[in-house]
Amino acid sequence: MKVQLMQHTPNPQRVVAMAARLCYSPIGAQELAETMTDKQVESLLKKIVELGHTSTLEHVTFTFAIEGVSRVLTHQLVRHRIASYSQQSQRYVSEHDFEYIVPKTIAANEEALAKFEALMKNVRQTYDELVALGVDKEDARYSLTNATETKIVVTMNARSLQNFFNLRCCQRAQWEIREMARLMLIEVKKVAPILFAKSGPLCVAEGFCPEGKMSCGKMKEMQALYATLGQEA
Amino acid sequence: MKVQLMQHTPNPQRVVAMAARLCYSPIGAQELAETMTDKQVESLLKKIVELGHTSTLEHVTFTFAIEGVSRVLTHQLVRHRIASYSQQSQRYVSEHDFEYIVPKTIAANEEALAKFEALMKNVRQTYDELVALGVDKEDARYSLTNATETKIVVTMNARSLQNFFNLRCCQRAQWEIREMARLMLIEVKKVAPILFAKSGPLCVAEGFCPEGKMSCGKMKEMQALYATLGQEA
Amino acid sequence: MKVQLMQHTPNPQRVVAMAARLCYSPIGAQELAETMTDKQVESLLKKIVELGHTSTLEHVTFTFAIEGVSRVLTHQLVRHRIASYSQQSQRYVSEHDFEYIVPKTIAANEEALAKFEALMKNVRQTYDELVALGVDKEDARYSLTNATETKIVVTMNARSLQNFFNLRCCQRAQWEIREMARLMLIEVKKVAPILFAKSGPLCVAEGFCPEGKMSCGKMKEMQALYATLGQEA
Amino acid sequence: MKVQLMQHTPNPQRVVAMAARLCYSPIGAQELAETMTDKQVESLLKKIVELGHTSTLEHVTFTFAIEGVSRVLTHQLVRHRIASYSQQSQRYVSEHDFEYIVPKTIAANEEALAKFEALMKNVRQTYDELVALGVDKEDARYSLTNATETKIVVTMNARSLQNFFNLRCCQRAQWEIREMARLMLIEVKKVAPILFAKSGPLCVAEGFCPEGKMSCGKMKEMQALYATLGQEA
Repeated sequence: MKVQLMQHTPNPQRVVAMAARLCYSPIGAQELAETMTDKQVESLLKKIVELGHTSTLEHVTFTFAIEGVSRVLTHQLVRHRIASYSQQSQRYVSEHDFEYIVPKTIAANEEALAKFEALMKNVRQTYDELVALGVDKEDARYSLTNATETKIVVTMNARSLQNFFNLRCCQRAQWEIREMARLMLIEVKKVAPILFAKSGPLCVAEGFCPEGKMSCGKMKEMQALYATLGQEA
Repeated sequence: MKVQLMQHTPNPQRVVAMAARLCYSPIGAQELAETMTDKQVESLLKKIVELGHTSTLEHVTFTFAIEGVSRVLTHQLVRHRIASYSQQSQRYVSEHDFEYIVPKTIAANEEALAKFEALMKNVRQTYDELVALGVDKEDARYSLTNATETKIVVTMNARSLQNFFNLRCCQRAQWEIREMARLMLIEVKKVAPILFAKSGPLCVAEGFCPEGKMSCGKMKEMQALYATLGQEA
Repeated sequence: MKVQLMQHTPNPQRVVAMAARLCYSPIGAQELAETMTDKQVESLLKKIVELGHTSTLEHVTFTFAIEGVSRVLTHQLVRHRIASYSQQSQRYVSEHDFEYIVPKTIAANEEALAKFEALMKNVRQTYDELVALGVDKEDARYSLTNATETKIVVTMNARSLQNFFNLRCCQRAQWEIREMARLMLIEVKKVAPILFAKSGPLCVAEGFCPEGKMSCGKMKEMQALYATLGQEA
Repeated sequence: MKVQLMQHTPNPQRVVAMAARLCYSPIGAQELAETMTDKQVESLLKKIVELGHTSTLEHVTFTFAIEGVSRVLTHQLVRHRIASYSQQSQRYVSEHDFEYIVPKTIAANEEALAKFEALMKNVRQTYDELVALGVDKEDARYSLTNATETKIVVTMNARSLQNFFNLRCCQRAQWEIREMARLMLIEVKKVAPILFAKSGPLCVAEGFCPEGKMSCGKMKEMQALYATLGQEA
């Protein structure tokens, strides 16, 4: 899995702080953007994050290039509606050479892995045969599995990202999208450390778990983990 | 494929007409809703649809139960963001008995069909073996294909539906989602015939095709087809 | 202020329960909708509301006719983006006979009220004079105040409503929109009592207040108030 | 009126072209972004704009600082829901020194202007008196008019901007928001000239007018005007 932050709004923390300040100030946005000190930006951001007044986070967006993920992941990902997506099309791009994602539970079991890989070989052969028989790529793809590798470009604003991290960094999220969410968070922390200082699963971001009996019960562990996220990377 | 209209806002055409009327009237909504004649409703709706003043169409929503469709279809469907979805989960529901969708181009070719069905048999066996080896459903599903049947509940408002029909009834749309869109349109025409009188691909709804050289070139045919859609059903 | 629930998805609680059930069931939506008992619907809804798994709440929508509110209120209201609005237009509807909203703090102070009413008289006169001088309604309205009465039709789904209540029933919300939110909640509780059983400000819905030092400090009071909301009405 | 483009996604045209390319290519996004020539970017963008395949335009966002506009304008502006806003609050910022917008039709008529300015003086006095009598700013603002100047920060992606220009550059749009839309378009053309080459009212962007009998009838004039927009500035 490869997660790259390709582009983002320049000076994202200053933009958010400026927008937040504007609401409570008689001074214009441009003047605020130019005259706020780094310290003022920092202190205002901390307050925003703490109080959860997150509407101003929408002014900054982050564009990720994601590769080496499965269609299991993207079918979940595109359910997040406050976001923009461009995905490699199985209708137009040949999957003759497709790669695929192997879940760890399968990779860790020799017998399961052998069966899984045999199936992938069969899929590849069937796909090629269908195409050879004149079936269009757009129909041959019905034979491809959920494991098939795909590429996608994703843009989200910082508020939508916060929500995404709350849900998808959670231990109860599916492992593949959870790993992607973790890598995305590491990336954005590099360019907006204060904005994403508290980000992570809900138990880290808000200090509580709504899942009741279905909770993973690892709140403390998660909080410790996310406190240093990206610092080891 | 099974497409049922499960629920919708009652009296959808009257609701849209009332909301449209309110914008230009000193009278309140409830009074308008009660006093507008059927003829006034009809004439106002025709004007709205003709001029494309479609914001008031958002006040009415339609909920569909959809079955017998593939994950090829739903991965496209959920890209429509002004809509709500609840989909059968491959994480929690066993796919031991999965059904699957066969594209016509494959069904029409004996050799292709034999290969496709052999693959489906292999997939079913592999899925069951993985589960038997202790792999969780959520990981075993990586072996399932795009063809796997799924069920989904979809809610869209009438404006979002219009846009959906413009894009997905188009001859250039993928055949499976195009068929679903056509069935959805037949359903909503039964309960809101004026609202959806002009609905269909863009060439039917707006009378032009933006696709340039990639156009299917069948505008007249499509217009004739959609003029009587659902009347034969 | 007049808040009427004009239309809503029929059987909203059953629709939500059906959609939630579908995700975890091999059975189709229509069959679920028909075979779930009232008790099953109720018990599933309680679980959904408790765990905050609210995506299925989007399948049901509620349309309100609202009158007797100011433009102070509607300028805030239309900031809620997961909603649909049709508002009486000051561009097309004459405001010769406009009514206006008087804040309680002004109504309670004889001197303030006198000044406020004198201003309203001046506004009315100026508006009429501008129109008489040939100024179009769309420009004459620049002389109208925030207090001017307006009418609006609002449609929200149940999930967006929950968020609306969390923010706008809060003691820190502006008094006029808070009153409207309270009346809207009373209305929807009549037709979907379980769905909205826990609804209200965040301190009622979630049991905590994120506002820190800016908290109103009345969590217990609010919880008591909302526990019986609408029962006295 | 002051409209400044404060921030935007860097290299917006290259980002859009890369995302468009990814859908039809086996190559990853980062490699595409690095290896596409300027000529390839330009030619692909022209195709996208011409065919109206605008989903990839969502990956780039533009943040504007807007001042010297009225609340008539912002109440319309915030109805655009695929956008983010931070507005100067009349609840927290004193309007003792408020400025106001005078419509040209009023400014051009001596008598009308005198009446309008007299009213503004009365409003200012009443606002101050209400505050002096102990009425909070959040209630005193009920006496302020629609003409009152406000400041707002707006972020939209390029696709939402295209739609915004289609609607608000139209001769039928209200003059103040039309002027703002024109200034915004001039700004974005400076940093993404190909992306916004065809932008403007629908008659410019798409070559047709849906307004029927209510059309302004100036399609040719508008097309000539927008063909050179910003080049004189």
